[in-house]
Amino acid sequence: MKFYDMALAPSPRRVRMFIAEKGIEIETVQVDLGGGEQLEPAFAKLNPWCTVPVLELDDGTCISEAIACCRYLEAAYPEPPLMGVTPAEQGVIAMWEHRVEWDGFIAGAEILRNSAKRLRGRALTGATSFDQIPELAERGKKRIAALLEMLDTRFGESEYLAGDAFTVADITALIAIDFVRRQKLEIPADRPHVKRWHDLVSARPSASA
Amino acid sequence: MKFYDMALAPSPRRVRMFIAEKGIEIETVQVDLGGGEQLEPAFAKLNPWCTVPVLELDDGTCISEAIACCRYLEAAYPEPPLMGVTPAEQGVIAMWEHRVEWDGFIAGAEILRNSAKRLRGRALTGATSFDQIPELAERGKKRIAALLEMLDTRFGESEYLAGDAFTVADITALIAIDFVRRQKLEIPADRPHVKRWHDLVSARPSASA
Repeated sequence: MKFYDMALAPSPRRVRMFIAEKGIEIETVQVDLGGGEQLEPAFAKLNPWCTVPVLELDDGTCISEAIACCRYLEAAYPEPPLMGVTPAEQGVIAMWEHRVEWDGFIAGAEILRNSAKRLRGRALTGATSFDQIPELAERGKKRIAALLEMLDTRFGESEYLAGDAFTVADITALIAIDFVRRQKLEIPADRPHVKRWHDLVSARPSASA
Repeated sequence: MKFYDMALAPSPRRVRMFIAEKGIEIETVQVDLGGGEQLEPAFAKLNPWCTVPVLELDDGTCISEAIACCRYLEAAYPEPPLMGVTPAEQGVIAMWEHRVEWDGFIAGAEILRNSAKRLRGRALTGATSFDQIPELAERGKKRIAALLEMLDTRFGESEYLAGDAFTVADITALIAIDFVRRQKLEIPADRPHVKRWHDLVSARPSASA
């Protein structure tokens, strides 16, 4: 198995952290996103959507999309469980994970990709060029503010995002928040429960994987 | 268990079709989205994001987000499997499902919510008001065109979206396409493989559930 990664990008970090939590080792290939390697035919054969992460299995099967890579790894390496065991756990974790992906990851990408000069014409990932929409960057900031308000309520009553245990939902939330922190949107002082949880999860060895 | 639904909305249709494929019956409650029932405190207690679908389990646990509802049902009612059995199947199905959600569902919502007069101030679901961005509606149309091109290639070589078997990825793709068809974006004549697959999947009894 090979893991196609890019050290600075948020999406592959989700899988990198998941792999570290599982305690497994996978051969890793860095993809030069800045140089456009993901758009070249050799990479597009692995993933027609031209994104990282990708897991290439030994039989040649390729799995892209961060949550799908995690789903494969969870089934192949069940311990420790990061996506729940009982049906209710699985559903609740998937709910939180999906929600922070929409409200955090998509909003974070809206901010970055619609404002950074180097990403002109690259407002969405993939082979099709899309112009930037500056209003979308502003909307993304408003979405992140709403997300942090919601998360502060949640972390005031729950140790981790989906309940008492660390799960893939915490991975997605941590990396979404770190993604927007790199865009100089720090966790505001009036969100102490988010800060408490962020310190807790950032202290895990997997967070620096 | 109760299923909170809205007959005309695309997201709960994903769960309705999944339930029909599983051959189970769940008490269903219609939520009056047009009248704003989803924003009222009684519903927000079930789902703070104020969206349908929601599954309310007998112990009071609530699961929102369509794919999370499906994840719960898949674990609770494994037969017939709609999300894969082997790790590779699970990963590949999750990849396609996630991709058509982004490229189809999100793009479809971008078109509708940024152009329909009745949705002014409701450019995103949930309790926070967001203004419409007309450029986003135009971008959504371009995304749908790119999606249909990609799907035509895929359905030229694969019976169903994730391979030889009908899965949750077909449910998400069908409902995303029907969502944009209702916005008068029909499947173009030069996408015959999409048409072949659409006819095949639409003929399942679950498609009219």
